[in-house]
Order: sequence, then C-alpha cells, then structure tokens
Amino acid sequence: MPHLKHMTIHTKTKSIINKPLILVTNDDGITSTGIKALVDAMKEIGKVVVVAPDSPQSGMGHAITLDDPLRIEPVRIFEDVDSYQCSGTPVDCVKLAVNKILKRKPDLCVSGINHGSNSSINILYSGTMSAAMEASIEGIKAIGFSYLNYSFDADFSVPKKFAKQIASKVLANGLPTNTLLNVNIPDLNHKHIKGIKVCRQSIAKYEEDYNERLDPRGRKYYWLTGKFVNNDPGEDTDEWALKNGFVSVVPVQFDLTAHHAIARINSFWK
Amino acid sequence: MPHLKHMTIHTKTKSIINKPLILVTNDDGITSTGIKALVDAMKEIGKVVVVAPDSPQSGMGHAITLDDPLRIEPVRIFEDVDSYQCSGTPVDCVKLAVNKILKRKPDLCVSGINHGSNSSINILYSGTMSAAMEASIEGIKAIGFSYLNYSFDADFSVPKKFAKQIASKVLANGLPTNTLLNVNIPDLNHKHIKGIKVCRQSIAKYEEDYNERLDPRGRKYYWLTGKFVNNDPGEDTDEWALKNGFVSVVPVQFDLTAHHAIARINSFWK
Repeated sequence: MPHLKHMTIHTKTKSIINKPLILVTNDDGITSTGIKALVDAMKEIGKVVVVAPDSPQSGMGHAITLDDPLRIEPVRIFEDVDSYQCSGTPVDCVKLAVNKILKRKPDLCVSGINHGSNSSINILYSGTMSAAMEASIEGIKAIGFSYLNYSFDADFSVPKKFAKQIASKVLANGLPTNTLLNVNIPDLNHKHIKGIKVCRQSIAKYEEDYNERLDPRGRKYYWLTGKFVNNDPGEDTDEWALKNGFVSVVPVQFDLTAHHAIARINSFWK
Repeated sequence: MPHLKHMTIHTKTKSIINKPLILVTNDDGITSTGIKALVDAMKEIGKVVVVAPDSPQSGMGHAITLDDPLRIEPVRIFEDVDSYQCSGTPVDCVKLAVNKILKRKPDLCVSGINHGSNSSINILYSGTMSAAMEASIEGIKAIGFSYLNYSFDADFSVPKKFAKQIASKVLANGLPTNTLLNVNIPDLNHKHIKGIKVCRQSIAKYEEDYNERLDPRGRKYYWLTGKFVNNDPGEDTDEWALKNGFVSVVPVQFDLTAHHAIARINSFWK
C-alpha cells in the first residue's frame, strides 16, 4: 500500500516541522496575569495565537453579542505571539478567531488561566468555560483552566505546569467527540498537590444574599453576593478532589439532554 | 395512622385553596408580546408574579451581573399581576425574584415565550433557557418556551395553548430532580401540529459568517451572522420533531459531566 505508507511519512514529517496551532483565550481580559501564564505554558508546546476580550468578562456565561458591532484590534502584549483583543464576550472571541483571524482550524483551544474556581455549577456562569465549550462545538479540542486563587498578583507557576502537562496529554491523545475538559487547580504548593483526578461535576449551588443599598438619590440598588454551598457528598466530584489536594479534571459535554428523564416525561402524555 | 391521614387531607385542602405560585420571566424583555402570552396562559392555572429584564437580553446565555449594581422596579403592565422589571440578565431576574421579591419559593418558573427557536445548541446562548435553568438549580420546577416565529407581532395563540397544557402537566406530575424542560413550538396552525414529542437535543452548530464593515472613521467592525446547520440525522431529536410538525420537549440537565468519557480521560494518566 504505497499510498498509505507515503501518507504516514508525510504526517510524521509535518508534525515535526509544524508545531500544533493553539488558540488561547480567557474571560478575565487580555491583560490578566492568568492568560500570560497560559501563553507562556503553551509556547513551549505549540504555535500560539491569542484572541481575548479587551476588558474583563467574568460571569458572562455563554453570552454572544447580537446587537452590537464587534471590534478586533491586533496588540503587542506577548513576546513573539500574534495577539488580538476583541470587544465581545469570550464566546465571541472564539467565533471571531476561528472565522476571521486564524488561517486554519487550531489543534487546541485553551481558555484561562482563570483567576478563581470554575468547579461545579460555576461552569455555567463562567466565560472561561463557555469559550472552551464554543471551541468544542466548532470541533476543536478544548480545555478551560482555572486556579483557586482570586488575587491579581497570584503566582501562576503551579497552574502553569499543570496546564502544560494536561494540554500535552490532550494533544497526544485527543478527546472524545463533543467533549472538552474543565480543569481546576487548587491553591497549593506543587509538593502538596496529590495528583490529577478525573471527576464529575459536583451538584452544588449558590445561596444568594443580595446586598441592598441606597444610591445618592435615595433609590434602592443591589449587589449580587452569595455563598457557594456544596451538599453533594460524592467522593468522585470536582469539589471533593479540590478540597483533598487534587487537580480536578471534569470531561464536559454540550449535549444538555437529561437522557435518563425522557421516559418519565414521555409518560406525561400516555 | 391518624397523623398521615390528617396530613393528606390538609395537603388536599391547601391545593384547592392556594393556587400554585408561578414565576414568569423571559429574555426578550418585559414589554415583549411573548411574555404577555405566557402571563395570560399562566393566569389560568396559578397565581402569577413577573420578574423580567427591562430591556432585550437575547443571546445572554447564563450571564450574571457581577460588576454592576442591579435595579428592580415594580411596573403596572399586566392586569392583576405583580410585575417587576430588572436591570440585569434573565438569570439575575430569577435570582432576585427568589431572593428578594417572592415571599416563598414558587411552584413553577416559566420563561418565554421566546420570539424564535431555542432548539438544539441554541439552548447554550439562550437567556430564556438559562433563566429556566437557574430556577431548576434553585430547586424550582422550570420550563422554557420558545416559538419558531421571530416577528414582533407574531400570533401567540398556538404556543400559548401548549404552554398552558405543558405547565399544567408539570404542576400535576412534577419533574425529575435537577431536570427542566426546553419546549419549542413550530410556527404552524394548531390543526397542523401533530402533537408533542419528547426528544433529545440535536447536535448541530452555527456556521458563522461575520459581516465586515467600515465605520465612518474607516475602522473595521463586524456583525455576527451565520447559518444554523444540523448534521444530526437522528429522528429522536428536537430538530427532527420541529421539522415534522411536532412540539419538541427536551428534558435538560445542568450536570454537564460527560460521564461516558471519564474512563477514557482517566487512561491519560495510567
């Protein structure tokens, strides 16, 4: 089979010459410390292009910009890396990158490293994870990284190491179809991290407590505050892993069907 | 067992005297035709309270407002119905309703009726569905309704009938834990609708085609446009149901774990 043999050789040569193309984005904005750490980690394993929001977009979930025009500006912010800032949401960034900026489909899209946790139910509110999910919808291998340290000047050396390690594994092994990864890294020294644990999303929720105030004109307004409450006792969850010193890796899908519930709902009309 | 017997009688009496409390919200904004139709339908089966965005919030996904104060204003817009408009996203509306406005947890939260489809992957971008999902996270039975007609002056009499019918079924039968419903109604006369079909979410995607323009100062900007492409051949999907004249009902969950992928991802570290 000379044709097949030729193809194999060709692919091998290509993978040596051409580094994998890695799209980096986030939701904290292109100037955040977390995305800088992720760019540095990805430069060691591929050719990096950055397309990230020009301002913080935390809590944007899977929002897209429908009623406003979008802007993209090239910026010089990371050494030797093509970088663009975008006026839209994290999901807009991925859509624009794939459709307007990149010359070919990237081999991997990584989002983060988020300043703060995106474990459990936080995945739904997280622009970081929605950007990764959008890439997965586009058929691109995708990972969202989050570090359980919210401070501006957090030391990202530990999460950076895990980002490189996990991204390398995904580039080498691929991911199941329509599946992305939600990776959370605990705020611990490297020697205190017990390892990587593949888990399920913990079923937790927020107990909101809106902070009520009066503006200078005497009118009420509210700030969202709240407490994250995990009542899921499972030892196979991301919350358990993080509390017990592991990096949590949750495989995530964008098919939201509750397949197990179809029969029950069907019985409503029987 | 006199105690149990007493409780049964008590519950029965209560359900006759107290109508179910139904929270109505949407993402098209409190002045839309679709929410008016939903309020009218729910008034026939329960006590309705409306908490909805003060402006259109389409495409907001599961966004929440973290960095801006939130406003709530009572409004007189629906006859005999307590109504509030909120400056936030659809998810903010549900959180504020449950935590600041309603005196008790509602028996049902309905969102919509959305002007346009929220079938398949649209669920991820949809503020309508995210509002319903937020209610489900709060432990409230929840349904999102969408009508496959985008026009401002669409006739909502058909979707209104189905909203009433499906909401009544859910009030009577309950829903499995952590499950909500995504209901889409085709743009057809009632006599042409073949029935209600419980289905799975179709695995489809958008093929974006950003519209590139120049502003008066000669700088580029983009409008998001695109084509919805369904390559999922399944006859058990919402897309199939809608194309074939059925109302689609997809049971939805907010556990995004790709449980089937855990073993494969685990093998990366073996």
